[in-house]
Amino acid sequence: MAGQQAVERAVTSRRERVNEAIDEDLPLAEPERLYEASRYLLQAGGKRLRPTVLLLAAESLADVSPLGADYRSFPAVDGEVDVMRAAVSVEIIQSFTLIHDDIMDDDDVRRGVPAVHREFDLSTAILAGDTLYSKAFENMLETGAPAERSVRALSELATTCTEICEGQSLDIDFEARAAVTPDEYLRMVELKTAVLYAAAASIPAVILGHDDAVEPLHSYGLDIGRAFQIQDDLLDLTTPTETLGKQRGSDLVEGKQTLITVHARNQGVDVDNLVDADSVEAVTETEIDAALDELETAGSIEFARERARGLVRSGKNHLNALPDNEASDLLASVADYLIEREY
Amino acid sequence: MAGQQAVERAVTSRRERVNEAIDEDLPLAEPERLYEASRYLLQAGGKRLRPTVLLLAAESLADVSPLGADYRSFPAVDGEVDVMRAAVSVEIIQSFTLIHDDIMDDDDVRRGVPAVHREFDLSTAILAGDTLYSKAFENMLETGAPAERSVRALSELATTCTEICEGQSLDIDFEARAAVTPDEYLRMVELKTAVLYAAAASIPAVILGHDDAVEPLHSYGLDIGRAFQIQDDLLDLTTPTETLGKQRGSDLVEGKQTLITVHARNQGVDVDNLVDADSVEAVTETEIDAALDELETAGSIEFARERARGLVRSGKNHLNALPDNEASDLLASVADYLIEREY
Repeated sequence: MAGQQAVERAVTSRRERVNEAIDEDLPLAEPERLYEASRYLLQAGGKRLRPTVLLLAAESLADVSPLGADYRSFPAVDGEVDVMRAAVSVEIIQSFTLIHDDIMDDDDVRRGVPAVHREFDLSTAILAGDTLYSKAFENMLETGAPAERSVRALSELATTCTEICEGQSLDIDFEARAAVTPDEYLRMVELKTAVLYAAAASIPAVILGHDDAVEPLHSYGLDIGRAFQIQDDLLDLTTPTETLGKQRGSDLVEGKQTLITVHARNQGVDVDNLVDADSVEAVTETEIDAALDELETAGSIEFARERARGLVRSGKNHLNALPDNEASDLLASVADYLIEREY
Repeated sequence: MAGQQAVERAVTSRRERVNEAIDEDLPLAEPERLYEASRYLLQAGGKRLRPTVLLLAAESLADVSPLGADYRSFPAVDGEVDVMRAAVSVEIIQSFTLIHDDIMDDDDVRRGVPAVHREFDLSTAILAGDTLYSKAFENMLETGAPAERSVRALSELATTCTEICEGQSLDIDFEARAAVTPDEYLRMVELKTAVLYAAAASIPAVILGHDDAVEPLHSYGLDIGRAFQIQDDLLDLTTPTETLGKQRGSDLVEGKQTLITVHARNQGVDVDNLVDADSVEAVTETEIDAALDELETAGSIEFARERARGLVRSGKNHLNALPDNEASDLLASVADYLIEREY
């Protein structure tokens, strides 16, 4: 299998192309301020993991060498399809959800820059998200796939968006609830985070006409998307503050439910009092270390790691439905990368 | 042509069916609070003018007697289509925009009940709107139309949503601008309001396969949608407070741009000081009457009425592309009704 370096190269080289495509497929239009706000977060950065998964899945299905075919006129089972449009669509959805989530969570910073509702204002941020929402659908309609397959891709996209809203709603509900089970938590993560990975992985199979691969790739996406979120929860506790770009342990301070705290609470840990500080500014590294020790003793860190590893194993198994080639190898390595990454 | 009473009967009888369909096609699901919030405004009332226009256009195109065919298996040029799904989709979009607009405008009341962000909270209102957004696309995908026509309907819906966002953005920008021309104002109204009437009128032609009628019905919708908004602006000044359900003249007090004030300002009227009161609670009927007198003297009321009448005439002309039947007659009367209605 390809190593972590190969994955990082694969992500980096695709990111450049995705960034160019976003600029082309989501052009600055009138009213300018609305489109500036809509493009602001997309231009602030982002790893482009979901578009990368989408493009790699397309390359594996078409059995072409990585970066060996033009994404704009990509070989389908019958003719050519602009798979880049689909990749842009998925990244636009991701950006729309971040803009609206930051309003709901009252977060000030995203990707190292002010959140859209801080850089602009509340109304502009709501509207920027709403504009991206329809732009994602407009782009997904421009792949040039036959109508029957476009309809299925659109349907997948619409269902995915509904589920993301349901997941975000559950996430907010959970903050006010004392007891959440690991299964409830993982269901929330599936909806809020994993379904967009599932859409990214399976939509190329839909639009390129590889019907047999749709379900396996969807399952692969659901698995690695959940693993990705668990790893995010782990990194919040274990990555040094300077590498993380925000205070380590902020989830604990803010009382956010994670698979780790959900498990710890079930083990009898008094999660709400793991740290005394009631703000991210006030918490000390020593406090976080003590909390981490307690979570490790309760087995919660290992529980989360093992669940993430299990999901990655399961996700990679679904890739057996793909041709054995360099791109499917990279998709397996992306799965590993998601739980090996350190930020 | 059918009279105003016939229009009201046509709207009322279709409203009942649309309300039933909304209940069926947007069912209460989990998380319950999210779906309660999503359905809240739809269940609070509304005339269902846009779905009525959509259903009447379908009836005229299929040349069936009004209410004479099952909307769920409606005769297309080749087979059957669920036009009710399209009507529900358009009404869901309308509801989503109202929920988000009320947040942006900080409005407390809508359809006689608290706005969604007041009845629930800001996060739930943003998410309810986002959920309706994707539910509208999901419903438009369920008409059973052939894929090629579904794709065109989806494309029309996505473009419409983008334009509504652009229109709302312009509306917000205009509040901070001193000089807006009548043409700029009408362009804003076209985007914010009229495009959804255009979608409602033309989408049945798309999904039923009456390609020649798509453009004329789209133009009809744009015309009557703009006329509808101008009439709304007029009613705010001329309808008694008790009939209106809110303070008469509130647009003036709040400094909202309307075709009337845009014209008056160009005529040299000091629009910003037409009323002294700086809140809707403080304004008196006498003050509003004096302001109305001044606007009448400047010719601004008649200017707006004439523009609305001209748009209705133009809109009705586009109906010549339809078969001559009872439903097309009703569509013409709906156009008249939009500028004759008193609330």
